[in-house]
Amino acid sequence: MEAGDMVRYKATIAYDGTDFSGFQVQPKGRTVQGELEKALAQMDKGKFIRIHPAGRTDAGVHAAQLVLHFDYTSTIPKEGLFKGLNVLTPNDISILYLERVANDFHARYQAKSKMYSYRVDNQGVRNPFTRNFALHHPYPLNQAKAEAALAVLVGTHDFTSFCSMKTDKVDKVRTIYEASLKIDETTKEWIFTFHGDGFLYNMIRIIVGTVLEIADGRKEVEEMKKVLEARDRNVAGPTIGPQGLRLEKVHY
Amino acid sequence: MEAGDMVRYKATIAYDGTDFSGFQVQPKGRTVQGELEKALAQMDKGKFIRIHPAGRTDAGVHAAQLVLHFDYTSTIPKEGLFKGLNVLTPNDISILYLERVANDFHARYQAKSKMYSYRVDNQGVRNPFTRNFALHHPYPLNQAKAEAALAVLVGTHDFTSFCSMKTDKVDKVRTIYEASLKIDETTKEWIFTFHGDGFLYNMIRIIVGTVLEIADGRKEVEEMKKVLEARDRNVAGPTIGPQGLRLEKVHY
Repeated sequence: MEAGDMVRYKATIAYDGTDFSGFQVQPKGRTVQGELEKALAQMDKGKFIRIHPAGRTDAGVHAAQLVLHFDYTSTIPKEGLFKGLNVLTPNDISILYLERVANDFHARYQAKSKMYSYRVDNQGVRNPFTRNFALHHPYPLNQAKAEAALAVLVGTHDFTSFCSMKTDKVDKVRTIYEASLKIDETTKEWIFTFHGDGFLYNMIRIIVGTVLEIADGRKEVEEMKKVLEARDRNVAGPTIGPQGLRLEKVHY
Repeated sequence: MEAGDMVRYKATIAYDGTDFSGFQVQPKGRTVQGELEKALAQMDKGKFIRIHPAGRTDAGVHAAQLVLHFDYTSTIPKEGLFKGLNVLTPNDISILYLERVANDFHARYQAKSKMYSYRVDNQGVRNPFTRNFALHHPYPLNQAKAEAALAVLVGTHDFTSFCSMKTDKVDKVRTIYEASLKIDETTKEWIFTFHGDGFLYNMIRIIVGTVLEIADGRKEVEEMKKVLEARDRNVAGPTIGPQGLRLEKVHY
């Protein structure tokens, strides 16, 4: 097979983050990027092809629809590449869609907004089937208080209080378009949804950690505004577990 | 703490079978029974307490509600035992209910019927989030044919054709009260439900393996009756994967 012209591909993938040391390739540990780049190389005589995701996720965090791009010169047709990647990746990763895009498409720079969900298992006894996909928090939660706390976050704010101090980002101003809550009456699962132009390191895990403190009565609703305005990570709640977090969609 | 009178407990448990070598304790491998008996021993100064389940499940098979009984002489009150067991068992097992029962209650002998489900992921690309809880079968399936094949099984029949030859059971006659199918339009998941007075070794996995052959066109609907009447394991379909199978309920 001869090398063809360079083609840029946009791929939308899903993965169960449970058994990954995060998205980004690293010297040790199994990563989503590592598995995808290995599969791409297998499809093109071992040639290394770098993938560029819209964003990265930490160990244990999931993605229902993450977008990425990569450049490909093999003459394998799109349908063959799509099927081959699904065969060559392990079964905790799926390639949902693959499309040819213009050579100036960039998965990260052109992403306009992202939507994440965070799931909380609020049953008294943990649900073994969702233990990798929801945080078990068995204390009585007040929905109205949680929603009042979420409402404080909507809009453009400096989210320093909700950002891990391990970040390298200087600008902590982000815009949240939606911060909502839905409760599944059958499973008692609390599903938080966040839609914003971008999210800081650990931002959603710290936000939900703080909202749970308010919803279960450890903090008052009024605290949320004070925490936001303090611009101090130390006054917000804990960074809760990664398992409840899921990247739902990247908008372009 | 002094030993009290013997008390028989009935427990209802749930587990994700993915990481277990089945329910029954064995020399090697992590088992549900082994973990539960270890937790019980920890609650009573290391004393060995045997648990008696309504039935066993194979490696990879799940339970939403399995019932078991055991005898206990420690004076730990019921609520403490319930909480302690949930703390001491790993997080892929949950104790949902615990109740004191009469000393002649027997989880297995008194079980009147059982309900199982089998889930099939019928999307073209596998769903990484349900890979441990559904069989991925990406071929077009005909619902009417599947339902016609299931209807053949309802009633009292000799199910030799749908029983693993590795069984030690001689009597292969069982009664199926319900064999139905529901399709989740959002996830495209096919959820089979079986309710019967008892099930033979691998019976549901062979039944659904055969129904899928009919639903995807490899076999005709008329074959189902012939397979049942042949009383020959070799004419039925394959024993499909354990991950789609779940014990839903035990009726007394």
